[in-house]
Amino acid sequence: MSEKAALDFLNANHERFLEELKEFLRIPSVSTTEEHKADVQAAAEWVAANLRKIGAKNVQIFPTKRHPVVYGEIAAAKSAPTVLVYGHYDVQPPDPEEKWETPPFEPSIRGERLYARGASDMKGQVMASLKAAEAVANSGSPVNIKFIIEGEEEIGSPDLAPFIAEHKELLVADVCLNPDAGMLAPDLPTITYGLRGLAYFELYVYGPTHDLHSGVYGGVVHNPAQAIAELIAGMHDKDGRITLPGFYDKVLPLSEEERAALADLPFDPEKFYLEQTGVPKLWGEPEYTPIERTGARPTLEINGLYSGYIGKGAKTVIPSYAMAKISCRLVPKQDPAEVAEQLRAYLEANAPDTIRWELKVMDGAPASIVNLDQPAVKALAKAMEQTWGRGPVYRREGGSIPVVGQMQEILGLESVLTGFGLPDSLIHAPNENLHLPTWRKGMEALVRFFYRFAEG
Amino acid sequence: MSEKAALDFLNANHERFLEELKEFLRIPSVSTTEEHKADVQAAAEWVAANLRKIGAKNVQIFPTKRHPVVYGEIAAAKSAPTVLVYGHYDVQPPDPEEKWETPPFEPSIRGERLYARGASDMKGQVMASLKAAEAVANSGSPVNIKFIIEGEEEIGSPDLAPFIAEHKELLVADVCLNPDAGMLAPDLPTITYGLRGLAYFELYVYGPTHDLHSGVYGGVVHNPAQAIAELIAGMHDKDGRITLPGFYDKVLPLSEEERAALADLPFDPEKFYLEQTGVPKLWGEPEYTPIERTGARPTLEINGLYSGYIGKGAKTVIPSYAMAKISCRLVPKQDPAEVAEQLRAYLEANAPDTIRWELKVMDGAPASIVNLDQPAVKALAKAMEQTWGRGPVYRREGGSIPVVGQMQEILGLESVLTGFGLPDSLIHAPNENLHLPTWRKGMEALVRFFYRFAEG
Repeated sequence: MSEKAALDFLNANHERFLEELKEFLRIPSVSTTEEHKADVQAAAEWVAANLRKIGAKNVQIFPTKRHPVVYGEIAAAKSAPTVLVYGHYDVQPPDPEEKWETPPFEPSIRGERLYARGASDMKGQVMASLKAAEAVANSGSPVNIKFIIEGEEEIGSPDLAPFIAEHKELLVADVCLNPDAGMLAPDLPTITYGLRGLAYFELYVYGPTHDLHSGVYGGVVHNPAQAIAELIAGMHDKDGRITLPGFYDKVLPLSEEERAALADLPFDPEKFYLEQTGVPKLWGEPEYTPIERTGARPTLEINGLYSGYIGKGAKTVIPSYAMAKISCRLVPKQDPAEVAEQLRAYLEANAPDTIRWELKVMDGAPASIVNLDQPAVKALAKAMEQTWGRGPVYRREGGSIPVVGQMQEILGLESVLTGFGLPDSLIHAPNENLHLPTWRKGMEALVRFFYRFAEG
Repeated sequence: MSEKAALDFLNANHERFLEELKEFLRIPSVSTTEEHKADVQAAAEWVAANLRKIGAKNVQIFPTKRHPVVYGEIAAAKSAPTVLVYGHYDVQPPDPEEKWETPPFEPSIRGERLYARGASDMKGQVMASLKAAEAVANSGSPVNIKFIIEGEEEIGSPDLAPFIAEHKELLVADVCLNPDAGMLAPDLPTITYGLRGLAYFELYVYGPTHDLHSGVYGGVVHNPAQAIAELIAGMHDKDGRITLPGFYDKVLPLSEEERAALADLPFDPEKFYLEQTGVPKLWGEPEYTPIERTGARPTLEINGLYSGYIGKGAKTVIPSYAMAKISCRLVPKQDPAEVAEQLRAYLEANAPDTIRWELKVMDGAPASIVNLDQPAVKALAKAMEQTWGRGPVYRREGGSIPVVGQMQEILGLESVLTGFGLPDSLIHAPNENLHLPTWRKGMEALVRFFYRFAEG
């Protein structure tokens, strides 16, 4: 059992790890659409094969209603503690595909980055965990490591909670390591302690039974595209506050202490967000800082909008319907089902009687907060300091990882959240990429984490 | 020269006419998209061949910058008056194609109707004119008939005005017969005397330089889909009045006389529009009747709306941009260029500095009013009475036919506007159709019109 041997193993095998990652990235395991079902299955099999390759035992592919969960374990001494590593092998759809500089499922290295869908979210992180485990296993692992790698994270993990509930014995562990969060900068190792929840909807506004000629009928029917615009416009007030009735009722105010901690960052968040997004000016609730708004405040976003004719040229129709994809990021205490009712109440109060509407409730997951006093957080902080020469920053992240809440509720298991994607890794966007030097440091940090956690 | 012989000829050849119409409808001559360029050309050649077949002389296909104009003439005695028949052989795109019960370019008869894209708008009308001309030519036409059939009407006829200006000599006539309007009901022959103009735009709202993860960036950037919704929502007030600065300045008030004439219809417009559109309730400026709102008042419609992810399932992006297709129907005195400036002024006053925007000005044409005292209107009214057993209703139509203004301005030529499509012919929509008994009566009415006009 030698930490140095494990770190040397990482160095000696780095090129191979990179090739394996590329192989993994070539599988278009998009979980959101039916057409990629076979690819998602292929990715599950790839993960199972890789687990066997690194010496994992009891490797299994568990089918679910949609996409399978892959399991495997690296065994150490019986007295050693157990880390349950969570990951997902599915990815977001690549569209708009025409905006990719190189094809999303043909990994391509330019400069220090590897470009491919899933490079940072989260095939790169899954590989960092598998390869850190391979390295410690190779010199006799100081910890038991169990892997649970699912294929439905990008569709809200609908089958994961039932799976966890059915396999409580198998998943017994001391902590869950979840590397699906990210880092603030290559020199700022980051531990995430808060995650926002998610509530996702599709809103349909129906007008005429068929597309109408705007010359013949313009002036007597309420255009559904206009009506949905009016409904969307009313969902925020002029300061960016959400107007759904009761939306903020359960939102906890930020304590002065937490505000001070969130403000203690070694960079200028306003400048940072302007650079990362390219927007002319930031937007949002004026009484909160940008870091508070992205991490500690709930949001309501329009993720997609469609109506009528969107091809080239002019078509003078009054569309028969309009559709919006709407999602809310939730903070602790907010309940996705309650938010659905609040949105429904808003629509009931505000939708005019000149149109019909329908609200489809899709994914939902509550927010979660991680306990920073647990041993695994301390072990990871120490491992990071040894790797980067500085301790981690602690932050709330705006994204949603439903499994964190499920591990807590079903297994009573705390999670420790980290990850090695960067803010400009363009996850969920064209040209998603992985910063390779950070990825390599991430593997080292995970090897050290396994040793520090074993030391207790 | 026998009117009876011409009417008998129509009867004897009706089945053949129907087969020719089907042949014409099978050509997918969609002028809005580049991919159908060859089909549009094929439709022009089909029209030229049909003109030759009916005995037209001097048949020519004139190329333009985009799609050609087809010309041909039926000669009568030198002293006979000349009717210039306008038509277009291009059609609207068929989408959404999945909503068609039978494919849009495979003409199919169900009951009394022929279903195909272009059946009513306006290949059916072009064929009615060609076949009426064939019938009168067969028994020695009492009038000279010139045909000008263009291929760009559905994209706003951008090359027609230059063509007319270059061929003034060729197009010399006493009146322009334009059968691109429609009828109010199968038993209500209709002459249209007012047409709205058109101003068509694309509005782009740009936010971040790339799609963002809504968890990571939600709360600090102004979502472009939300921003475009806010801008669209502000373009009408709560009563459906358009808020662009100066939009109504040149709109003439309706006289009591005209309001009375428009109200004198043998049906209930409110019930009619509810039935035709299937909307739960009519919408629009409360101080005007539905007939006034569709014919005599200007409108602003959203014809298309797009942003972000619109595929199946959930994708949590903040879109990088949003797009709306917007068009205004204009009434006399409104100038499309001025309306573009009014929309730009609205955007300058209302667009927030958290986004960037761009307005692309597309088609434009002013409104037009037809002189009802001209001999051709009287000739057509008499022909209609002889065909349907009742005289026509006169109405303003909400649609836009730019060529009416161009004929007036460039050639000094009055138009007489009619047509044999019905309100439920679903032009510009899936399942466009032609009511065949009305089409047949339309041909008879046109034969009689040629004779009545020749009588002077």
